[in-house]
Amino acid sequence: METKAKLPPGFLERCIDQAIGRTQADLVIKGASILNLITGEIAVSDIAITGNRIIGTYESYQGVREIDGRGLFAVPGFIDTHVHCESTLVAPGEFDRIVLPRGTTTAICDPHEICNVLGAQGLAYFTQSAEALAMDLRVQLSSCVPATGLETSGAELRAGDLLPFLSHPKVLGLAEFMNFPGVLHKDPVVMEKLYAFAGEHIDGHAPKLSGRELNAYLSCGIRNCHETTSLPEAWEKLRKGVHLLIREGTVTRDVTTLSPALTPETSLNCSFCTDDRNPLDIFTEGHLDYSVRKAIASGVAPLHAYRAVSYAAARGFGLRDRGLIAPGQRADIVLLEDLEACAVKRVIAGGRLVEEIDFAARALPGFVGLESMKLEKVSPEDFRTPGTGPTTAVIGILRDKIVTEHLTMTLPYRNGERLPDLANDVLKIAVLARHGKNRNIGRGFVKGFGLKNGALASSVGHDSHNVCVAGTDDAQMALAVNRLVELGGGFVAVANGQVVGELPLKMAGLMSVKSAEAVREELIALRAATRAMGCELAEPFLHLAFLPLPVIPHLKITDMGVVDVDKFALVD
Amino acid sequence: METKAKLPPGFLERCIDQAIGRTQADLVIKGASILNLITGEIAVSDIAITGNRIIGTYESYQGVREIDGRGLFAVPGFIDTHVHCESTLVAPGEFDRIVLPRGTTTAICDPHEICNVLGAQGLAYFTQSAEALAMDLRVQLSSCVPATGLETSGAELRAGDLLPFLSHPKVLGLAEFMNFPGVLHKDPVVMEKLYAFAGEHIDGHAPKLSGRELNAYLSCGIRNCHETTSLPEAWEKLRKGVHLLIREGTVTRDVTTLSPALTPETSLNCSFCTDDRNPLDIFTEGHLDYSVRKAIASGVAPLHAYRAVSYAAARGFGLRDRGLIAPGQRADIVLLEDLEACAVKRVIAGGRLVEEIDFAARALPGFVGLESMKLEKVSPEDFRTPGTGPTTAVIGILRDKIVTEHLTMTLPYRNGERLPDLANDVLKIAVLARHGKNRNIGRGFVKGFGLKNGALASSVGHDSHNVCVAGTDDAQMALAVNRLVELGGGFVAVANGQVVGELPLKMAGLMSVKSAEAVREELIALRAATRAMGCELAEPFLHLAFLPLPVIPHLKITDMGVVDVDKFALVD
Repeated sequence: METKAKLPPGFLERCIDQAIGRTQADLVIKGASILNLITGEIAVSDIAITGNRIIGTYESYQGVREIDGRGLFAVPGFIDTHVHCESTLVAPGEFDRIVLPRGTTTAICDPHEICNVLGAQGLAYFTQSAEALAMDLRVQLSSCVPATGLETSGAELRAGDLLPFLSHPKVLGLAEFMNFPGVLHKDPVVMEKLYAFAGEHIDGHAPKLSGRELNAYLSCGIRNCHETTSLPEAWEKLRKGVHLLIREGTVTRDVTTLSPALTPETSLNCSFCTDDRNPLDIFTEGHLDYSVRKAIASGVAPLHAYRAVSYAAARGFGLRDRGLIAPGQRADIVLLEDLEACAVKRVIAGGRLVEEIDFAARALPGFVGLESMKLEKVSPEDFRTPGTGPTTAVIGILRDKIVTEHLTMTLPYRNGERLPDLANDVLKIAVLARHGKNRNIGRGFVKGFGLKNGALASSVGHDSHNVCVAGTDDAQMALAVNRLVELGGGFVAVANGQVVGELPLKMAGLMSVKSAEAVREELIALRAATRAMGCELAEPFLHLAFLPLPVIPHLKITDMGVVDVDKFALVD
Repeated sequence: METKAKLPPGFLERCIDQAIGRTQADLVIKGASILNLITGEIAVSDIAITGNRIIGTYESYQGVREIDGRGLFAVPGFIDTHVHCESTLVAPGEFDRIVLPRGTTTAICDPHEICNVLGAQGLAYFTQSAEALAMDLRVQLSSCVPATGLETSGAELRAGDLLPFLSHPKVLGLAEFMNFPGVLHKDPVVMEKLYAFAGEHIDGHAPKLSGRELNAYLSCGIRNCHETTSLPEAWEKLRKGVHLLIREGTVTRDVTTLSPALTPETSLNCSFCTDDRNPLDIFTEGHLDYSVRKAIASGVAPLHAYRAVSYAAARGFGLRDRGLIAPGQRADIVLLEDLEACAVKRVIAGGRLVEEIDFAARALPGFVGLESMKLEKVSPEDFRTPGTGPTTAVIGILRDKIVTEHLTMTLPYRNGERLPDLANDVLKIAVLARHGKNRNIGRGFVKGFGLKNGALASSVGHDSHNVCVAGTDDAQMALAVNRLVELGGGFVAVANGQVVGELPLKMAGLMSVKSAEAVREELIALRAATRAMGCELAEPFLHLAFLPLPVIPHLKITDMGVVDVDKFALVD
């Protein structure tokens, strides 16, 4: 599973000569304190590098180029074990530019979001981008497009569509197998993928799955899980051989809760991931450096936190060429001013010192999916919610979680129509198909946004990325959706009958074509707008984006209607 | 690197149904105490198995067949990370039959010995055998045939001869890269192999290599070492990312010395191997069970000893389908009556309870290399040792070690000929080419066998397996060699002018065509014969067999003459 690209002629001879000291090394980090992830020792040493490879440690070396490492700690580059780059709202090139300087030298992404909109074109866009980046971006093949049969996606990827990508040097295996009910029920389309990738790396996704059902899921060769949110769940999974990917995203934040499971004994079976993290959090808190810092603050020994974020991650994904500062390993090195604070000073990626100026030189592919909003103008009538009585299922938002509550509430009921209950913070919510396949609109109710007079609409709506809109009334919902279509996708906030905030995401309705810094400013403005609307959620658009995800318990909504995830069926 | 053989249709559906408990599992171990190698916990649980796969743990299961595990500990099957099956002196089928019931469910062998005699035919014989065995025998591709240019081997395997075997499902990568001087000197034939296998698994062999030279060796992508014999050497290698394969063979026994390096932190970077272990030791002491027992007796916690012998070994070789008792893993399980004593009660290999009767059913390939002694009759004159003076280099045998001392001694000197010095235990030694390529005879002197009147001859002579003979006089040396040729290879002991012991090894002059039990009896008789001759070494024939190995320090002998290994050159 490593890069088996042919070595350039003479490369190994250069490694040997430079390692022995017959010639100067290409690059030497002088006198840094290596945190040894195998022995746990900290010792001052030079680190010699030839090309993209570490060739000498614990010896004195001279380099053609030298970096002063005195007073700094050296640890292996960080590995994000599960990330949807799309959730940073920027293109992979911008993701690279903002997370690599924070120490993330490898990211294992699942381009699931763009694939749900564009299909195999999304995979091709990510593998092409990966080849151009300064970091090593690995691309898992999205396993669940569409995630379920309970929604209309923009594309379908069957086993036969994925297999041609398996030999690509940037591809490791099959991405998170979200459709765990499909596994348990032996859904033929699911089984086809599990057979096709038997023996290959398959990522897991098994929130709250336990007991015999967890056994069944794992028995199909699924290796890890990033959807673990409680300690008992973590311990059961570790006991059953699952590699635990401890997530610290924007909405879901599990490091503090799960840190007690990251022990000296388990530290090679635990890693970190960000899954879905917006650029604001990356700029203000950090990326994996933030996870490490938080884990150490939660009581994890630095040795085990750094082991998890690099060595354990590499080995857990079959990447044997990285994760250690040792001869023969890829020269992905983070130099830290402070070990416990994970204060990143400099980053070496593939043997090159990361410098802002080099990002401009990358040959990135052009933008894709610029015409993805295949949706006609809507009117307030499209959002009417007739019902047989006042009592109905209501989605209950839980702060900082993507799991929801399945509430049953009695709503205002007039002329055969159920209405929002603003006094109890119950809004109307709708999901509109936007891939040109049909004109479905699913309608329901949601509690927890805190809006008093307005609507929020998004073309990011996991996992099929239909349009999701929540609002206090039908007219403002229609206004928000129509503005979203004009923008070519993104986020729109409407208040008092006016558009008060927006963030265009023109690539597949998921990613901006602007810089990460521009998106950060747009997000700050949008957050201020939603706060002014009375919404107290830190990230209302991320909550909105996860409400259509019918593989996360308990009550969700798609373009087909409200979904009881526990029963894996539409509600009435 | 795992077995990616297509799964039989319906297999995963059977796994799911049996794991959930919709149907009975194929096999259930009831109520064993699982030693969990990730968490360190010991807890009573059923273990459910479908076909060759574990599908359920920590839940209650019913099986079509059930094994009572109450009162027993369950640990994953043991993995011998580096073994030359030829050194057991029996065919792979016999190796399987004697080590599998002792818990060794996977062995990673290097058929280096037979390849030095038969070339690619040896590789083919081992891969064919592997397909028939009850255990999972993995075959590394012998990297150093011939080991050096300082000897005449029966065959040469170049990169192009090895590569066609790489796609075989039983092959993991390149076997121990013994020619470390060749790496350091950038020998073109060596470099060709390192380029051809770049990014693949490459086993190491680096006795006493340290500092920048070790860095250079490792920078070529070599991953492990089984030739570590001291603690400082072990710590340097661990620090530099080397997976430590702690060896307990017949001659070389490193477990007691190296156990302090097997700690909670390093336990996923340490494993065990036997390398060269004769059937007598397997019958009396055990196989890897003996290594585990000895490590625990040396102070290693059972958790870390069992982790090293299974989980660490599997991951260190890229085998992600075994090494844990967990759903989705291969059903290789050892049931123990006692954890600290590593007392093996029952073994399950690939989902089948190991029973003596099943070994008879294996479809083993026919014997190969039955005509490998391409050597003409010799006379005493062939062993004359003319010299320019009485002082000469003498090989000093070290008890229980394959490294030797480079002694300089003054010998009896008459008529321009150096003679053995029996008073000081210095015998004559010779190595005779036996592959029909030439009629080379290398001659020298050796101290340490303790013979008073006789000779010992062997067709096992690492690594080219020329004939090696040591004796008190030329006539008895000639008698021993001539008897060896008549036998078609093996070991011969001559005393007082008579053959007093012999053990035929008709397959390539390396392996018996008889049962392991028969070979054991022959070895016991042979040992008694050498003991009666005054030899106090526990295994004189194994010492004899390693004297021609010019990649092990310090002084050795080949058919070309005496070799100073430190200078990697023939002596005068």
